[in-house]
Amino acid sequence: MSGGHVAIVGATGAVGHDLLHVLAARDFPVRSLRLLASPRSAGQRLPFRGEQVLVEALDEGSFRGVDVAFFSAGGDISRRFVPIAVDAGAAVVDNSSAFRLQADVPLVVPEVNAIAVELHRGILANPNCSTILLVLTLAPLQRVAGLRTVVVATYQAASGAGQQAVEELRAGTAAALAGEELPARVLPHRLAFNLFPHIDVFEADGYTKEESKLLLETRKILGLPELPVDATCVRVPVERCHSEAVTVQLQRPLSPQQARELFAASPGLELVDDPAHRRYPMPLPMSGRDAVAVGRVRAARAFDTGLSYWLCGDQLRKGAALNAVQIAELL
Amino acid sequence: MSGGHVAIVGATGAVGHDLLHVLAARDFPVRSLRLLASPRSAGQRLPFRGEQVLVEALDEGSFRGVDVAFFSAGGDISRRFVPIAVDAGAAVVDNSSAFRLQADVPLVVPEVNAIAVELHRGILANPNCSTILLVLTLAPLQRVAGLRTVVVATYQAASGAGQQAVEELRAGTAAALAGEELPARVLPHRLAFNLFPHIDVFEADGYTKEESKLLLETRKILGLPELPVDATCVRVPVERCHSEAVTVQLQRPLSPQQARELFAASPGLELVDDPAHRRYPMPLPMSGRDAVAVGRVRAARAFDTGLSYWLCGDQLRKGAALNAVQIAELL
Repeated sequence: MSGGHVAIVGATGAVGHDLLHVLAARDFPVRSLRLLASPRSAGQRLPFRGEQVLVEALDEGSFRGVDVAFFSAGGDISRRFVPIAVDAGAAVVDNSSAFRLQADVPLVVPEVNAIAVELHRGILANPNCSTILLVLTLAPLQRVAGLRTVVVATYQAASGAGQQAVEELRAGTAAALAGEELPARVLPHRLAFNLFPHIDVFEADGYTKEESKLLLETRKILGLPELPVDATCVRVPVERCHSEAVTVQLQRPLSPQQARELFAASPGLELVDDPAHRRYPMPLPMSGRDAVAVGRVRAARAFDTGLSYWLCGDQLRKGAALNAVQIAELL
Repeated sequence: MSGGHVAIVGATGAVGHDLLHVLAARDFPVRSLRLLASPRSAGQRLPFRGEQVLVEALDEGSFRGVDVAFFSAGGDISRRFVPIAVDAGAAVVDNSSAFRLQADVPLVVPEVNAIAVELHRGILANPNCSTILLVLTLAPLQRVAGLRTVVVATYQAASGAGQQAVEELRAGTAAALAGEELPARVLPHRLAFNLFPHIDVFEADGYTKEESKLLLETRKILGLPELPVDATCVRVPVERCHSEAVTVQLQRPLSPQQARELFAASPGLELVDDPAHRRYPMPLPMSGRDAVAVGRVRAARAFDTGLSYWLCGDQLRKGAALNAVQIAELL
């Protein structure tokens, strides 16, 4: 085909920026591109394949003639406008959490459960960034050795809270180096030379919503409705790329070397596991990369049959924009 | 008594600085104080209780007449000079890992196993900083509910690698903000806006020595030689205070509320667990504090009977200097 009519809702945000980059880099067939944002951001122009595309204000008529709409403007915008886009005939890839756990909405990581796309009724949900990175490593383990239990602690970058949070981190860090204190406004606390176990809102059981997303979305994507996933999600003073320390209990034995070979052969993953030469996944070298890096693979000490490992991936790229475009490519 | 003759080996280092502070703050009975360091640092003067004390070069005659010697100058210095100090009649509190796992050397966290001090034969070992923080929370759980399995991921500050690492973090961060790159010299990689799962050296099984210290020292202190402790140790761009995400499997049920009450009543711990008001342990507010903060207490999702929680403590203070002085106070 000569391409479809594509819309991006939230085009001026951090994920929107990466969506434009990924659509161009992957030669996604775009016949026309409509960039949508709040009235405040309308009137800007953003570059796409050498042209400057005007950003328009999102409204109820925005989706006429649109074939594929990417939503990345938060749950409230998605809840209001995704049904409108679907009614207008668009297939929606939604990056918010609004529809992820609805039974009739596929929640898709293409390397893991591409088949789920076939069941869509207009809406396809892009999982939470931390979930995407995690399930890319869990899926091959599930296939080969079976999963019993997952314990994960995250190290999440400021950009996960948006571009304003990155700017707050940078300004707060400059202030701290000068012996000054910049009050937090976007993030719940000062992040400069600090960190906190608080991402998204707290729920009644003491877990954050981010931690529960890791549980519920992982279960849905892997088709394991009983899988225990115990997460602690932490914001760290890093600009880009989330990291995760993972310990899994398996149903059948798998040696660290077998797991390394499995990870190395798994699409979307890159094995970076040569500690003797100081090579293991880190945020800086993974920034702007499509692959998710996995390393520090070793026999778990917590479980007789299990593994511990460490992963790192660009949560704006594979954790959001790339995965969304990959979903659209399956349509 | 009118006090003892005290020596500090490594007086000019980060822990040495805190030792001087803690000895003064706790009114430790000091009749005379001898500050010892490398020849390079000798000749400096450091303040103690309003006086300027001369730093002398460490040599084999340094311990004549010394009653208590604090060592905090690394394993090589300890291996060479601790036996000399003991022969000279001093009781040594050693902050290095050199003697920690020797059967005849007590490894002591006073709130947990003060009784072990009685068995000393000259050397008392101060545990690794991450271990001290962890066992302060594990010991009350062990006493009330029994421990089966521990999974821990750490978030360790630059100062754990010494004052030079803090300066490298600060200079590297200033450079990064200016769009420049400062090569790492003290740490294995750039730490500014980055992090890495590499503390101490790697062992044959893929774990770092730091991760194995958490296993072996925790077992020794708690008297549980079979306890599984699965650790991932990570250096983060924070100046001071280590944090840990902990998931424990217990032998008997303990509700989050019971655990909170237990932690609140445990010496050395401070319960900071009011997420609705954004209160949970964080490095910045814990810097320079004696207590170890614990919060985010919740029922574990990985285990039918277990808890997940989050702790944060000043690894130079309770993680090193304070614990060492508390050990000396037991003598």
